[in-house]
Amino acid sequence: MKVYLDNNATTIVDPHVFEEMEPFFIKKYGNPNSLHAYAGETHPHIKTAMERIYAGIDADRKDSVVMTSGATESINWVIKAIYFEYIVTGKKNHIIVSEVEHPATIASAKFLESLGCKVTYLPINSAGLIEAKDVRESITDKTALVSVMWANNETGAIFPIKEIGEICAEKNVLFHTDAVQAIGKLPVSVQENNIDYLTFSGHKFHGPKGIGALYMKKGKELMPLLHGGSQMGGHRSGTLNVPGIVGMGRAMEEAVKALDFEMTELRTMRDAFEDELLKIPNTFVVTPREHRTPNTILISFRGIEGESMLWDLNQAGIGASTGSACASEDLEANSVMEAIGADEDLAHTAIRFSLSRYTTQEEIDYTLATVLKAVARLREISSSFAYAPEGHDSGLVAH
Amino acid sequence: MKVYLDNNATTIVDPHVFEEMEPFFIKKYGNPNSLHAYAGETHPHIKTAMERIYAGIDADRKDSVVMTSGATESINWVIKAIYFEYIVTGKKNHIIVSEVEHPATIASAKFLESLGCKVTYLPINSAGLIEAKDVRESITDKTALVSVMWANNETGAIFPIKEIGEICAEKNVLFHTDAVQAIGKLPVSVQENNIDYLTFSGHKFHGPKGIGALYMKKGKELMPLLHGGSQMGGHRSGTLNVPGIVGMGRAMEEAVKALDFEMTELRTMRDAFEDELLKIPNTFVVTPREHRTPNTILISFRGIEGESMLWDLNQAGIGASTGSACASEDLEANSVMEAIGADEDLAHTAIRFSLSRYTTQEEIDYTLATVLKAVARLREISSSFAYAPEGHDSGLVAH
Repeated sequence: MKVYLDNNATTIVDPHVFEEMEPFFIKKYGNPNSLHAYAGETHPHIKTAMERIYAGIDADRKDSVVMTSGATESINWVIKAIYFEYIVTGKKNHIIVSEVEHPATIASAKFLESLGCKVTYLPINSAGLIEAKDVRESITDKTALVSVMWANNETGAIFPIKEIGEICAEKNVLFHTDAVQAIGKLPVSVQENNIDYLTFSGHKFHGPKGIGALYMKKGKELMPLLHGGSQMGGHRSGTLNVPGIVGMGRAMEEAVKALDFEMTELRTMRDAFEDELLKIPNTFVVTPREHRTPNTILISFRGIEGESMLWDLNQAGIGASTGSACASEDLEANSVMEAIGADEDLAHTAIRFSLSRYTTQEEIDYTLATVLKAVARLREISSSFAYAPEGHDSGLVAH
Repeated sequence: MKVYLDNNATTIVDPHVFEEMEPFFIKKYGNPNSLHAYAGETHPHIKTAMERIYAGIDADRKDSVVMTSGATESINWVIKAIYFEYIVTGKKNHIIVSEVEHPATIASAKFLESLGCKVTYLPINSAGLIEAKDVRESITDKTALVSVMWANNETGAIFPIKEIGEICAEKNVLFHTDAVQAIGKLPVSVQENNIDYLTFSGHKFHGPKGIGALYMKKGKELMPLLHGGSQMGGHRSGTLNVPGIVGMGRAMEEAVKALDFEMTELRTMRDAFEDELLKIPNTFVVTPREHRTPNTILISFRGIEGESMLWDLNQAGIGASTGSACASEDLEANSVMEAIGADEDLAHTAIRFSLSRYTTQEEIDYTLATVLKAVARLREISSSFAYAPEGHDSGLVAH
């Protein structure tokens, strides 16, 4: 049996999405910026895609939603434009991010730090959550930007975006949220949350890889990251990725349609799976379910190296993760587990299961049975588990 | 009849390319950076694509070829990394570009200019060519970069890359070439031309849109433009666009295979077409054929607005262009025609026909017949042509 439970890393393309993209490779391949019928025949499809995307995030028609190559580009755009517009000019000297942002945000923030910008890295609490009051306390009159993800890629923890948006609006500080893990899993409205900039990637919600977007509120448009032919109303240059845009548009529409399912039936399946996993002794989950996206479980099995568990799962045809795929080239401890101060032994034991609307109960049952066998086998040969005292206090709530 | 003669703007995806990409949307959708079989099954295909791309540009295995979202990103990367590494630090203060570079280069250069960097814009001569001696004369001990395109997108003019590469190597100045219009039309070897950085887009040689690359010579690696999860060996972050990479790999292989055809049979077809067009009185072509890519004709019909001609062609099902699609949102004079100092009347009369290996003789015959009819109709109603003296000296060689 093959089971894919790594949907926070990437997702299968929805067949409807692929079907809608497919004509734009060979049949309708024109460059939308040309001045002939080959261009013109792409226009209504791009328009439809844009309308679906505006609707999906509740953007106003006067706001700008600009297609990019993905969230990494979008996030780099926000942070580097802020650098050129506010930091280089000396107007501001400070930005605020959480310490568990995606590497695109962390690495961009560190780049700004290397150029003399001050960066505050907001901590997460023991439940894996950002606290809005920390944002308020960190803002100075030199703060240009607050950048906090809507939901965390590793735990699924949902951050208090509405409160942070209100604080930023009150303090007149720009607010960016990386919504990569929120689209399709939570209702996302830029207007209801005082969001200035919002970024996402198509491939995280059953769209294609290589396409994403940056939302910019009217009046808060940033200078381009990619200069050139002035496509996308001058905001982002480069020939439009027509199949990508069409695909992400359809993926957004399908994600919105499926949202109710994800928040009820998928959540119920996830919860039942988690209940069973937590019956295994010495297992830990950081963030309470009610503060999580409906599809994600980050669970630690004391005494079992995450990579060993992944190996056993993989041998059984199951794809899961030890955390972000975007940082998996180096086998570091899970960054959330480190951020909450888990001891090093536990930090290396986290496994992330991330479900999708394509996940079946049969797949979950098979995965549970596989995990039970793997835990028995791996704890049998685990030196760290053998010597760990029963009920060892990790500072985490044992479930 | 439908005829596509705008291949310098974008190209149809080769059916072999699409066939090879197709499994990576729904069947093999894993994130290559994950640690399970869904990732692993993509790896050999990415490796094959990379090998084809390295071979296609004659890169050494020790050099870096990094996948991007397209040439606009790649070009922005080169110019902005040069800014951060050489200009901000005060080591250098100057870059050199040609005045007919693609907007991605021109706009990035102008951005650097706005930040205090000096920029030399090399002129083209009356044949639409850059002269290598101008590069030599423009280099100072504060020059960080020379950026000159391999072939011009509007005229097809081939610039003296080998000589410029030698001058840059001798003067110890970094050399970037935008090879967007060269791949698949000319033999491209980075090693034989002293190239430090080379950029291109897949969709210009029958690959998909939304994928491109930056070649960086070993020892000349630039800091990233997109920071994040350290994909692509740390050079370019963002989830790998697997179908895009696989598609561009195959497109490169097909382009190399077809190169001989393009340089002989396609060239012959283009030349015969051009001969017939030039039999129309008061027509002008800027760059001599032997200095052009084999697929491109930029031709002026005195007294006929380019947009009027495009309209007539489009009505007949023929897609052509007045110049770069990347700048076509504003109806300015053709930039090459302006750069050679054509009078304003003539600058607005240029039409670009760009052929591909999919162009047929039947399509060319139909296009020629359509052009003849359009010229007759449009000159009949042209006020500027009616009053232009016979044999009016434009400073151009009349053909």
